[in-house]
Amino acid sequence: MEKKLLVTVSIILNLVFIIHILYNNSTTWNPTWTKRATVEAETAASVSCSGHGRAYVDGLGSLDGNKPPCECNNCYTGNDCSLLLQDCPVDANSGDPLFLEPFWMRQAERSAVLVSGWHRMSYIYQDGTSVSKELEKVIRKLHGVVGNAITENRFVIFGSGSTQLLAAAVHALSFIESSSPPARLLASVPFYAMYKEQAEFFDSAHLKFEGDAFAWKKSEDSDNVTQVIEVVTSPNNPDGMLKRAVLQGPNVKTVHDYAYYWPYFSPITVPADEDLSLFSLSKTTGHAGSRFGTNLSVYEKMKRYVTLSSMGVSRVTQLQVLELLKVVVSDGGDEIFSFGYETLKKRWDTLNKIFSMSNRFSLQTTKPEYCNYFKKVRDFTPSYAWVKCERVEDTNCYEIFRAAKITGRSGKVFGSEERFVRLSLIRSQDDFDHLIDMLKKLVSRGADFI
Amino acid sequence: MEKKLLVTVSIILNLVFIIHILYNNSTTWNPTWTKRATVEAETAASVSCSGHGRAYVDGLGSLDGNKPPCECNNCYTGNDCSLLLQDCPVDANSGDPLFLEPFWMRQAERSAVLVSGWHRMSYIYQDGTSVSKELEKVIRKLHGVVGNAITENRFVIFGSGSTQLLAAAVHALSFIESSSPPARLLASVPFYAMYKEQAEFFDSAHLKFEGDAFAWKKSEDSDNVTQVIEVVTSPNNPDGMLKRAVLQGPNVKTVHDYAYYWPYFSPITVPADEDLSLFSLSKTTGHAGSRFGTNLSVYEKMKRYVTLSSMGVSRVTQLQVLELLKVVVSDGGDEIFSFGYETLKKRWDTLNKIFSMSNRFSLQTTKPEYCNYFKKVRDFTPSYAWVKCERVEDTNCYEIFRAAKITGRSGKVFGSEERFVRLSLIRSQDDFDHLIDMLKKLVSRGADFI
Repeated sequence: MEKKLLVTVSIILNLVFIIHILYNNSTTWNPTWTKRATVEAETAASVSCSGHGRAYVDGLGSLDGNKPPCECNNCYTGNDCSLLLQDCPVDANSGDPLFLEPFWMRQAERSAVLVSGWHRMSYIYQDGTSVSKELEKVIRKLHGVVGNAITENRFVIFGSGSTQLLAAAVHALSFIESSSPPARLLASVPFYAMYKEQAEFFDSAHLKFEGDAFAWKKSEDSDNVTQVIEVVTSPNNPDGMLKRAVLQGPNVKTVHDYAYYWPYFSPITVPADEDLSLFSLSKTTGHAGSRFGTNLSVYEKMKRYVTLSSMGVSRVTQLQVLELLKVVVSDGGDEIFSFGYETLKKRWDTLNKIFSMSNRFSLQTTKPEYCNYFKKVRDFTPSYAWVKCERVEDTNCYEIFRAAKITGRSGKVFGSEERFVRLSLIRSQDDFDHLIDMLKKLVSRGADFI
Repeated sequence: MEKKLLVTVSIILNLVFIIHILYNNSTTWNPTWTKRATVEAETAASVSCSGHGRAYVDGLGSLDGNKPPCECNNCYTGNDCSLLLQDCPVDANSGDPLFLEPFWMRQAERSAVLVSGWHRMSYIYQDGTSVSKELEKVIRKLHGVVGNAITENRFVIFGSGSTQLLAAAVHALSFIESSSPPARLLASVPFYAMYKEQAEFFDSAHLKFEGDAFAWKKSEDSDNVTQVIEVVTSPNNPDGMLKRAVLQGPNVKTVHDYAYYWPYFSPITVPADEDLSLFSLSKTTGHAGSRFGTNLSVYEKMKRYVTLSSMGVSRVTQLQVLELLKVVVSDGGDEIFSFGYETLKKRWDTLNKIFSMSNRFSLQTTKPEYCNYFKKVRDFTPSYAWVKCERVEDTNCYEIFRAAKITGRSGKVFGSEERFVRLSLIRSQDDFDHLIDMLKKLVSRGADFI
């Protein structure tokens, strides 16, 4: 009897094993040529850096086949980034959009893309263009979902970042008869320094940076004849305000820079419907290193600019952007925009609380507005704090912050007074936490003097 | 007895299965977050396109989750690209470097790379630069292995293609006191049209394209004072010749464009050791859509140009290039350079045979030289055939070929006579086979008239 039971159990077990093996073999996916890259990526991703750094597949030593090392966030050090450096100065200068990194870490699977050496080697896509049609589609879809731009019957153009597209736009609009004086490039103070830097560096015979749009409007050179290009940044960098064009007239052309017109930073009050609008991937998904821009009209000249300046945009970059934007639009943007907005809202709440204790420093103020995206009245949560040093003697605000070990960007860079300094709020959580620590010290110290 | 055997066998089988399952679970690699991307890539790669096309992960419809369709080579059609179109004109115009595609298909595994959304989101690498250190290392290694450039004590700079770097170089060298007349940009005929197009399009106040370097040397404007920039393309585009600078003097600056100085196209006679040299990824690995260049000196100004024109190069592009060049250098370049050279050698043998039957058309001729890379005397196997129409009445060679359904590029584009036409030989095998078919017809027809 016992033996019979044993045989039966054993045979049943055998059957279970056979089924298990057969089933597993038929459903387990079997990687082939993709395996090496996958192991490489999983290895890098599995390196533990204490939450204060990451290891990347192309980290130092990867050429020699070493496991990539941790690359630590600012002020962290050690093999696993677990050591916090004492008295380390905070970097609050550039708008490196790492506040979205935790979102992409969570979306590691859905945003992953695998390419091999034979992926799209040609200069052109099958339709003869140098831009992926699927990418163009997903960009239009994104603007539709967010409601920040009308894309129907508009051209979409891609560049190596909105930096390149800005140069292309300004260049395209400055084409005038060669005998005419150069077109003047204007922006209202405070403005993003790139406009000035590009115009001065590229020293086109047809373009001259002239500075503040308000000053130009009042000046006697403003004659309704001289060709003028105004760049309108809205929300504005550095102060986050929604801005309108200052200049109008038959001689005025306008470039709208909407890099920050996303629900993270600002209520979406109305879809952009301008002749020429620029958007930037860096402030959409946070991918600073693989930027994209879109805009409408003056199409051919800008396309030629992009071709002549860099022969279009790398194929793998286009592929990655497609994959990222697919993730973004898949739920109508719900997850990423909520995550990003909540993150910035919390940061602003913290910041406002600190500055409310100070008479020495003040922040820009904005009134809440109705946001068509979130379907509610909401605060502005700009990328940057635009801080004013209120004391008469504090003429150089940048230096005051620098002495407190906080590196911002001087108001002067934005065509404004040195009494202002811009602090970036969209960097990594570590950078922000560190910034808050240092600000608390500075503000409490400041309070002693009140 | 039988029962005992049954029990024993059954139990042994049980053990075998258990060991099998345990062993398999511990050694089978278990994909996790990388799985989706891998399946996607394998699916696209498995689409069969009859050898006359490929399907890509970002093909049409990929946004809607469809299996990507075949994208057929020129003149092929049908769902699986198996249909050859009758009377289809040949494209022999652009230098789309698809001749290396079969190499990368074979290297699918080694050249694959997997990135997820959180890969290097920052503008900068950990060292504060916008260029991957490993990438810079592998580029220096590549030049060392090939022996086509000395990189010791030289700067390496990266751009969105050598197109961007060319503009950056010319711009950097044209910086002169603003009161001086603009620098003249020169190249000896026949020259690559991009030089002229960029200079004219970007219309810098400090630069003017002046045309042929030989003509300038003879002209009375050549005064040893006017600032001059000569671009020397070697091997030359369109004719594949090794070229030297025409102009010398204290007022002359030289940019060396070595885009074609790779063993595929030319004997490597001596390592480049110039002040400023440009290389291009498109003619190194064949990746036209993700170009890179390197050069030496005038570093800071060029870096600023790249920053201001496109904020550096996309991170995934840098990662892919690193992966590609790792494959290239892994065996000292043996496999890729041999494959590429053999391919072009075969193409030139076929071409020479056809043209040898014709008095109507002639090809450029070059003498074999010793190649330091292959360690032997070898032919030039240029990217392009530089064809001359020899008959007096055949004044427009481009049109003669176009009538025979071969689209080349007119000699006029290169500052040369219309009696020349350039035919690209580095395109896909399908394009080349097709070109040969049409050339045979043209040449045999031409023979009737002799």
